[in-house]
Amino acid sequence: MELNCIKNPNVLKGMGVKEMEALAADIRQFLITKLSETGGHIAPNLGVVELTLVLHKLFDSPKDKLIWDVGHQSYVHKILTGRSEQFNTLRQYKGLCGFPKRSESEHDVWETGHSSTSLSAAMGMAAARDIKGTNEQIVPIIGDGALTGGMALEALNHIGHEQTNMIIILNDNEMSIAPNVGAMHNMLGRLRTAGKYKKVKDDLEYLMKKIPAFGGKIAGAAERVKDTVKYMLVSGVFFEELGITYLGPVDGHNMNNLIENINYAKKTKGPVLVHVLTQKGKGYKPAELDVSGEWHGTGPYKIESGDFIKPVNAPPGYSKVVSETLRKLARVDERIVVITPAMVVGSKLEGFANEFPKRFFDVGIAEQHATTMAAGLATQGMKPVVSIYSTFMQRAYDQIVHDVCRQNLNVVFSVDRSGLVGADGETHQGVFDVAFLRSLPNMVIAMGKDENECQHLVNTALKYDNGPIAVRCPRGNGIGINMDKELKELPIGRWEILKEGKDIAILSFGPMLQTVMEAAKQLQSEGISVSVVNARFIKPLDDDMLRKIAELHMPVLTVEESVLQGGFGSAVLEFFHDEGYHDMVIDRMGIPDRFIEHGNVKDLLNEIGLTSEQIYHHAKKLIPTHRQRA
Amino acid sequence: MELNCIKNPNVLKGMGVKEMEALAADIRQFLITKLSETGGHIAPNLGVVELTLVLHKLFDSPKDKLIWDVGHQSYVHKILTGRSEQFNTLRQYKGLCGFPKRSESEHDVWETGHSSTSLSAAMGMAAARDIKGTNEQIVPIIGDGALTGGMALEALNHIGHEQTNMIIILNDNEMSIAPNVGAMHNMLGRLRTAGKYKKVKDDLEYLMKKIPAFGGKIAGAAERVKDTVKYMLVSGVFFEELGITYLGPVDGHNMNNLIENINYAKKTKGPVLVHVLTQKGKGYKPAELDVSGEWHGTGPYKIESGDFIKPVNAPPGYSKVVSETLRKLARVDERIVVITPAMVVGSKLEGFANEFPKRFFDVGIAEQHATTMAAGLATQGMKPVVSIYSTFMQRAYDQIVHDVCRQNLNVVFSVDRSGLVGADGETHQGVFDVAFLRSLPNMVIAMGKDENECQHLVNTALKYDNGPIAVRCPRGNGIGINMDKELKELPIGRWEILKEGKDIAILSFGPMLQTVMEAAKQLQSEGISVSVVNARFIKPLDDDMLRKIAELHMPVLTVEESVLQGGFGSAVLEFFHDEGYHDMVIDRMGIPDRFIEHGNVKDLLNEIGLTSEQIYHHAKKLIPTHRQRA
Repeated sequence: MELNCIKNPNVLKGMGVKEMEALAADIRQFLITKLSETGGHIAPNLGVVELTLVLHKLFDSPKDKLIWDVGHQSYVHKILTGRSEQFNTLRQYKGLCGFPKRSESEHDVWETGHSSTSLSAAMGMAAARDIKGTNEQIVPIIGDGALTGGMALEALNHIGHEQTNMIIILNDNEMSIAPNVGAMHNMLGRLRTAGKYKKVKDDLEYLMKKIPAFGGKIAGAAERVKDTVKYMLVSGVFFEELGITYLGPVDGHNMNNLIENINYAKKTKGPVLVHVLTQKGKGYKPAELDVSGEWHGTGPYKIESGDFIKPVNAPPGYSKVVSETLRKLARVDERIVVITPAMVVGSKLEGFANEFPKRFFDVGIAEQHATTMAAGLATQGMKPVVSIYSTFMQRAYDQIVHDVCRQNLNVVFSVDRSGLVGADGETHQGVFDVAFLRSLPNMVIAMGKDENECQHLVNTALKYDNGPIAVRCPRGNGIGINMDKELKELPIGRWEILKEGKDIAILSFGPMLQTVMEAAKQLQSEGISVSVVNARFIKPLDDDMLRKIAELHMPVLTVEESVLQGGFGSAVLEFFHDEGYHDMVIDRMGIPDRFIEHGNVKDLLNEIGLTSEQIYHHAKKLIPTHRQRA
Repeated sequence: MELNCIKNPNVLKGMGVKEMEALAADIRQFLITKLSETGGHIAPNLGVVELTLVLHKLFDSPKDKLIWDVGHQSYVHKILTGRSEQFNTLRQYKGLCGFPKRSESEHDVWETGHSSTSLSAAMGMAAARDIKGTNEQIVPIIGDGALTGGMALEALNHIGHEQTNMIIILNDNEMSIAPNVGAMHNMLGRLRTAGKYKKVKDDLEYLMKKIPAFGGKIAGAAERVKDTVKYMLVSGVFFEELGITYLGPVDGHNMNNLIENINYAKKTKGPVLVHVLTQKGKGYKPAELDVSGEWHGTGPYKIESGDFIKPVNAPPGYSKVVSETLRKLARVDERIVVITPAMVVGSKLEGFANEFPKRFFDVGIAEQHATTMAAGLATQGMKPVVSIYSTFMQRAYDQIVHDVCRQNLNVVFSVDRSGLVGADGETHQGVFDVAFLRSLPNMVIAMGKDENECQHLVNTALKYDNGPIAVRCPRGNGIGINMDKELKELPIGRWEILKEGKDIAILSFGPMLQTVMEAAKQLQSEGISVSVVNARFIKPLDDDMLRKIAELHMPVLTVEESVLQGGFGSAVLEFFHDEGYHDMVIDRMGIPDRFIEHGNVKDLLNEIGLTSEQIYHHAKKLIPTHRQRA
């Protein structure tokens, strides 16, 4: 059928499985075609086509609450809730969001982006329902990878305890973002093969009925033993131990099977978990055959060949620069250990992992554990590197404060995807870390102006042995600068003057300096003499240089791709006032006090005014007003 | 024996169990006596006397690593490692820390205070050992309550996966800080009674050997069934599922039993968990009989009667004021739901819990889940209150950002123990929340100057319906002011002038205003005219009032019991510069850029200069230099 005719999921109510299967095929074709142009999370969505159709058939959204964990697998849900026509703008500026978005549809009852939140959200919604005495169904859909996140386990524990009615769909695709890690994954593996045990169970039950000795000998306990054996052999004992009824495993691409099990779950009291096996990328060969995870989220691709359409001769990506530098360093320093919370592919760590398998740990989606494990390593004289996206670092805030900074341990944070990340949008922008790290004692924060400086800062961080240090790098490719062959060690807390002038000092860090330099050129062309400072250490500040600027009575403009509240610019304000320079003219540019949605980074920077034109205007405004009240 | 003769744990090496039992009795007596004077975590420590003696006998600390989770149960460890003489100064300024402290002893290999970090630290230390090829034992000791924290579960998952050698001691005292919550607790309960199953298991094994039909019918699976039944019946299937060998349960007050099991664990390959049952408060009746948890951590007490020695006629505690206000409000607003992560007693929520059992959730040590569950409730139109200590709120940082602020949900955070907390020390100081909350879009932050304003702010927060709001309150008692009978709603973002003057404006919030008022009095006595402003909203600022101050050309002094980097004072700096008031003379007082150790709050404030004298001096210095460079 024409997908744009689907205005809401009611269309499914009268359909039989045959029709739904035809619709599933249409949706798959639609996704493969559309995403080849826009890019997006193709593999996770192809894996849940049947599951999403069945959920929308059996539940009454938005009265019943479908809660998508992580949310990157919500495309089919978006199609079924009347948004197919917007897929041309998927993940683009002002376009359809790649995650559930409450402002887009009443069917998006919960927004996400980070993993493992769905069960807690579900518990909240279920508690609200039970207090109000209404009867909607609460249906979180969570992947096997997300289940290793600590908060999901906290929620399972609470849900099992409260015996709250809800139907948890465990979407087990054996792959999640990176190949799954952890004992829980092994346990799920055992459940997957549970069919084998069916016969054992039958035999055992048969025996227990037949043999009088059994009933005689163990008396009242017999029932318990039967129970025990039952769920040990054919079901998810882990979940049952937590008080959650386990159903499955169910073939997630077999609609009859799904319907039968989910209908059974609807009749079950208390929390139920339906274990659904799906295949990521189902129906599109290149994605089905993917073992490395590169089809999890992609840019545009050629449908026939499955080749990614990538810019030719692009400079190396920052993640790659960092990981290659770590490799180089690890060859000569045996203390270096790299830990990633499930971002092997995203942070390009495959090379390191292969070369140093004993000094590389993918701990799964477990940022808290990753950080404190690094702290444990550091107490023993090792040099742990936590490779982590800025946005996911938020999950480890307390571990950074309490375990790393407080004990002043030599943990290196390689903060990937710092700054605006673009298409993933507001859940993923790496814009808070400067503010939250800066207020922590003992923490050093650095960011290179380009990929060459980035490698030197990684080297500097690994040589630093006076406490924790975070080296930020942006998402995407470098600027194409020549890479020095020899790694340098840069002095902590010392900045670099990129351009010397006397009318104004512009302080910035990271690739934003490129934009600042453009603005400086324009100012210069009008006869204004501009200093541009590479504040490659965000903490500690370069006190000497700041004092010099103050003594020269220059106005100061700070520019950062980071939140203004408590950010780098505020650090500069604090410094001047603490030192008694009370009449400095200072303006700060950065991310304003609101969440920044998805879109091309250039469009976003334009929207928030972090462009060379705006820097030019801000700078110009400062000069005539210097030492006067504005 | 004389405990002060114990210089290190070697003293135990030659001892027999009888001698150790005598020593245990001496240590109990010592703890009961000493803590009756200083206060401290009496019940947890009385519970682990035998366990600690056995651990130090069987392991070779500090080569072997004893890692105490939470750490408040490390007193016996401190005695055995030569620190008994320092117990007079326990938890006092410059005295013995109430938690493990690396600077105190080489035997304190890991510092804590927050729960659930020990397993991750252990994994880090074990990884370091395995990379270096050394052979020390890694022994985390974790309570049943701490095991519900997400990061502990993340760590268990990873440890099970890696099959890393370590001996996890599960110290199951059935009580933890508050009565334990969660399905995991029920599971532990089942394990506790596992003795009952012993006979069943024996019978079943007997049967399986005897009956040919069994071996014949289920062929190769027989071994697996036996295995299955074995661990289902007598052991911790939950842990075994995660790949961790389970031993126990063991009577934690029976040294022979402990020695036998831990020695067995030492011989076992891979991760082993020894399930030890202990009784909190063992050997001191009032603590043994405690059901509410008030003997978890205490002030001084009378040994004979078990009465706490408390100041008479003290004003009501802030926690109590908050909880009673919530009760009042909940009687008329059925949307109000209170969630606590295991701090029922600490935050005085028993009354609320009893009156509104269906609208009260103790989720266990699970700050992340507590926060996102609140977000889920808020999506359904409820009015959730997350009652949480400032320091533990750090665990929920990402949930606050990603789930609450980003979705702009009406979640109220009742931030207990904000500011310096005193004896618990640097792991527990509530000094980061202002900085980290202030940089988040949509967040409102408030703090009352006294217990009366506190109740009005709680009311204001529950009436506010434009997004999240955090109401901070300090640890301890109010100032003894009269409480208004009627609850008021205070206008968001509006400050209060406590004193009007023209020479300087001092801006502060919370009980610190008491100290500021003292300083103002002194300044006034010298003819200086002081404005004192109660900045009861830390975010948003009172723009109008700040503009007025700027127009009056007054110097400004901000005073906060909170970190200076990115704190309230920085917000004031940001405001003035953003508005173009570039020549304001501003000084900020607050917590400097280092961790603040334990001690009496007064001593700590004195050390960091947050006293009325220092405020007086700072203020005076600002006045002559107004509009001049210092």
